[in-house]
Amino acid sequence: MIDGVKVIGARGRVGSAIGARLAQRGLLDDGLAPALVLLCVPDRTIAEVAAGIEAGPWVAHVSGGTPLAALAPHDRRFSLHPLQTFTLDRGAEQLDGAWGAVSGESAEATAAGTWLAESLGLKPFVLEDDARALYHAGAAVASNYLVTLRRIAGELLTYADVPSEALDPLMRRVVENGFQLTGPIERGDWETVERHRTAIAARAPELLDAYDMLARLTARATA
Amino acid sequence: MIDGVKVIGARGRVGSAIGARLAQRGLLDDGLAPALVLLCVPDRTIAEVAAGIEAGPWVAHVSGGTPLAALAPHDRRFSLHPLQTFTLDRGAEQLDGAWGAVSGESAEATAAGTWLAESLGLKPFVLEDDARALYHAGAAVASNYLVTLRRIAGELLTYADVPSEALDPLMRRVVENGFQLTGPIERGDWETVERHRTAIAARAPELLDAYDMLARLTARATA
Repeated sequence: MIDGVKVIGARGRVGSAIGARLAQRGLLDDGLAPALVLLCVPDRTIAEVAAGIEAGPWVAHVSGGTPLAALAPHDRRFSLHPLQTFTLDRGAEQLDGAWGAVSGESAEATAAGTWLAESLGLKPFVLEDDARALYHAGAAVASNYLVTLRRIAGELLTYADVPSEALDPLMRRVVENGFQLTGPIERGDWETVERHRTAIAARAPELLDAYDMLARLTARATA
Repeated sequence: MIDGVKVIGARGRVGSAIGARLAQRGLLDDGLAPALVLLCVPDRTIAEVAAGIEAGPWVAHVSGGTPLAALAPHDRRFSLHPLQTFTLDRGAEQLDGAWGAVSGESAEATAAGTWLAESLGLKPFVLEDDARALYHAGAAVASNYLVTLRRIAGELLTYADVPSEALDPLMRRVVENGFQLTGPIERGDWETVERHRTAIAARAPELLDAYDMLARLTARATA
């Protein structure tokens, strides 16, 4: 179906990984008439860049949070959001094993997005355009707030005068083990939770509300 | 120094991994006069079990949250907390690469704990007994609340009608990439944050407070 893809924003974190994979597959097309123009540009510039593309090719973006309407005036459009975090230090292999959210307004558009996901090495799933904000919020909670969680926990270890990087093998294993809940809340050991709270209140009071809220949400899951 | 270790609680999640590693090292001693008795029992039973051990050997526990005083009346005592999560499905290799918190009240006790950590394949660091609650709170935030974060994010994806396991490669990579912050808050894109909030308020209002608190903590780090 689509025999060539032009990437706009190929020097960015996502665009460079996607461009490298398309090159591996012989699918890059930097000519004047690509079958698909793929926008790997910052979210806020998608609408402007899309508006500047001459009608004809498929036009798609790789944003999780941006509606398809941003690709106006193009009708042959879709989005493919790789549910992954990318760094410029790595290449195409960052796509391997990740999932990709495909949004389209027609069977043809969804098929085009699914084809692109599979060509990139992503596991495709369909995301309705109007469920996008909820989906993207979930992705942000999982990835961005994970960074915040590590930072908060690291602060507590630093206050305890021990190396915060000691947390990294632990967090890696929690993910590897499929997120099994262990620890005081899982075993209903509220005395230990109270000792945590007392220590946090004394040394890191700015973190107590967060500790408590997450404790409540954790307890909710065990109920 | 210590030439044999008796493990009490060797069928538990931590005890079985530790017992397997000690066996590999030829350090298990199930005789009547071990040099060290290592308590791998539930936190709340440590004091009772310790009190029942005849004076003589080193006595230690592997709890993160339990003070050394729980090992009374023994004086030759220490604790070694493997900062890792364990499952019965795996063995001694779970210790590899993890850190271990060593607490002792004398140079000799700290040396004994450090020796045990290294014998188990853990990277030792010293934890003061009175910093234990703060340390353990940090460990719980990093591991237990990570499970909660995955669950919350998974709920949002489920509400968006997409597979929640799509988050797993993303979260694994965030850890692998050293917890680099990306996403809307990092780039100051508060419009996207507001779209998240609107979507969460409509579909998962019970999660809005958590989203907001974590957004504030995330923004604090970027300030």
